[in-house]
Amino acid sequence: MVDIDTDQQVDGIGALPQKWSVENVRFSADGASVVILDQTLLPGETKYLKLNKAQDLHEAIVDMRVRGAPAIGIFAAFAMCVIAGQSKAKDYIEFKADVMKCGDYLNSARPTAVNLSRQIRRMEKHVASMEGLPIYRIIESMRCEAEEIQREDIEMCLAISKYGLTLLHSGDGVLTQCNAGPLATSLYGTALGPILLARERGVDLNVFCCETRPLLQGARLTTYELDTAGIGCTLICDNMASIVMSEGKIDAVFTGCDRVARNGDVANKVGTSGLAILAKHYGVKFYVFCPSSTIDPGSATGDNIEIEQREPEEIKEMFFKSPIAPSRVKCYNPAFDVTDNRLITAIITDKGICEPPYYESLTKFWHPSE
Amino acid sequence: MVDIDTDQQVDGIGALPQKWSVENVRFSADGASVVILDQTLLPGETKYLKLNKAQDLHEAIVDMRVRGAPAIGIFAAFAMCVIAGQSKAKDYIEFKADVMKCGDYLNSARPTAVNLSRQIRRMEKHVASMEGLPIYRIIESMRCEAEEIQREDIEMCLAISKYGLTLLHSGDGVLTQCNAGPLATSLYGTALGPILLARERGVDLNVFCCETRPLLQGARLTTYELDTAGIGCTLICDNMASIVMSEGKIDAVFTGCDRVARNGDVANKVGTSGLAILAKHYGVKFYVFCPSSTIDPGSATGDNIEIEQREPEEIKEMFFKSPIAPSRVKCYNPAFDVTDNRLITAIITDKGICEPPYYESLTKFWHPSE
Repeated sequence: MVDIDTDQQVDGIGALPQKWSVENVRFSADGASVVILDQTLLPGETKYLKLNKAQDLHEAIVDMRVRGAPAIGIFAAFAMCVIAGQSKAKDYIEFKADVMKCGDYLNSARPTAVNLSRQIRRMEKHVASMEGLPIYRIIESMRCEAEEIQREDIEMCLAISKYGLTLLHSGDGVLTQCNAGPLATSLYGTALGPILLARERGVDLNVFCCETRPLLQGARLTTYELDTAGIGCTLICDNMASIVMSEGKIDAVFTGCDRVARNGDVANKVGTSGLAILAKHYGVKFYVFCPSSTIDPGSATGDNIEIEQREPEEIKEMFFKSPIAPSRVKCYNPAFDVTDNRLITAIITDKGICEPPYYESLTKFWHPSE
Repeated sequence: MVDIDTDQQVDGIGALPQKWSVENVRFSADGASVVILDQTLLPGETKYLKLNKAQDLHEAIVDMRVRGAPAIGIFAAFAMCVIAGQSKAKDYIEFKADVMKCGDYLNSARPTAVNLSRQIRRMEKHVASMEGLPIYRIIESMRCEAEEIQREDIEMCLAISKYGLTLLHSGDGVLTQCNAGPLATSLYGTALGPILLARERGVDLNVFCCETRPLLQGARLTTYELDTAGIGCTLICDNMASIVMSEGKIDAVFTGCDRVARNGDVANKVGTSGLAILAKHYGVKFYVFCPSSTIDPGSATGDNIEIEQREPEEIKEMFFKSPIAPSRVKCYNPAFDVTDNRLITAIITDKGICEPPYYESLTKFWHPSE
């Protein structure tokens, strides 16, 4: 049973102003539920769900009602607090066992998202550090820790956004794809952060968004975020990027990324490598935005990054009234592709801007926990 | 009032075998109607419509039930015969006036398609050449002329296909986009012709089809044609062309085109220029297929070719249950783009294969009627 949250007003995270942004994850006023914006209904419907049952919280991740690797991690930390608050444990040992069980359950929702397991581990460690305290105090402290995870994500996004803003000039044309904004992270987002910050600072941009087939995150989510922030933007189909660049409308491509190899090769949403090749051809700058935690010292190059293959139905049926191709026609549906580092102008992290040669510049910013 | 044709068996054009192909335009058995495959219902439904009222024939072009520049031209010639057959004219003068009125009416359905006005003019000239003959004889002769137009189109497609086949080897990976097959032309198509001919000759290919947003002609029409011909193919989203090429799956891109400038620049479905840039980057051959009549001596380069802008609804709503982006979000929807001649490996026409430098090679194949 999922409740619809009747208080659909964004009521603030910490002290940061955010009327112009989209809030995706927060506690309900009584702290007994997690309130999320249901991303599967966007852009048609802005509906906030109040979730408190373990199964509903788990399914919200599976069904992508909450999505974007950082947002999933934050949501899981919030969910652990809500489920822990329902524990009938009589002592710390029982309580800790409940927390671990809850962590395993949530972690199984999308086993490949690194942020999910990372934040669950962090919450478990936090509980482990409070042995001896009364359970109600541990639960209070867990809530603070979860909100701290979100606050850190906001600060990380803000840092990326500030570095990114230095690359923009008034009147610039910026092309985005997929979704790397507030819905996928917190408040600012990564690749979308500098664009939102530019708006705050009065820097006018001409933003173009690739719709990003098959799941249309660019059309459904990124234009929604920009519209919410009062930023006009122009939606194009993915195959229109070339003509838009050829007409001189684009100064820079801004994209997020899922993994950065040591040599600067980047794995991201399928289509990223194509945009990078077009940008090189037309002399357009190509910028990748990500938390420094995305740099993977375990990957020397992008060559061995495994590409997730997804179901053909996403191409043939998703969002359509009837299949768009005959039933016997196969589909190839890779979720990601790898962009050659030689096509990337710079990689912008929360710790600073990395320029080629990436073997050198990236080493400064490896995440300490990796 | 549109009748559904109950005889949905393809019953042959001339002596050419075509069980494996898709028939898009023919006369009904009594010659009093034009039978078309309703392309707006593909691939979900294969429905043939029997049309004989002037308004229905006109609307079939407007509504894109018949589409593809060559197919529209053929259809208009057939439609003129059917409408002329209903003329109540008492003498040649009246009859000719009826034919001219009919031509003007059909020509207004899509005024930019050059084949439409060209074939209407040809039918009018044919009528003008038969002054003095009984009207029933003129109508008979018009039917022969319309079928001759279709037969010439088949021969043109077959010639392109034969030249194109010389570029293919067993096991090759071929990437197509949009629709340049039997549905848009006759029997073989242009860019799809060599692939269909390869199947006839037992040359196995690995065919990939870009879905081709916004109207998905690649997914809806090209995979349908290939499926009908018993040719397995793999559908991809447009933003997956880069990864498919990077994985070595593609040896050549095959595309049709709408206009060729004297220097070899090519105007075609939006996305063509992007595919050409990717092909160059990955060392993949890029072939353009078209009738020699597509060469436009009036265009020195592609720079001044006007690009048709279409409605935002095609991007935001077409085929979807609900809009894919907020209502305030603008769309940019160019129907075509221009591909730089330096990115094109060869242009294959019904008269032969043109290679760079195109200023020289194309002049040999200018269409005499231009």
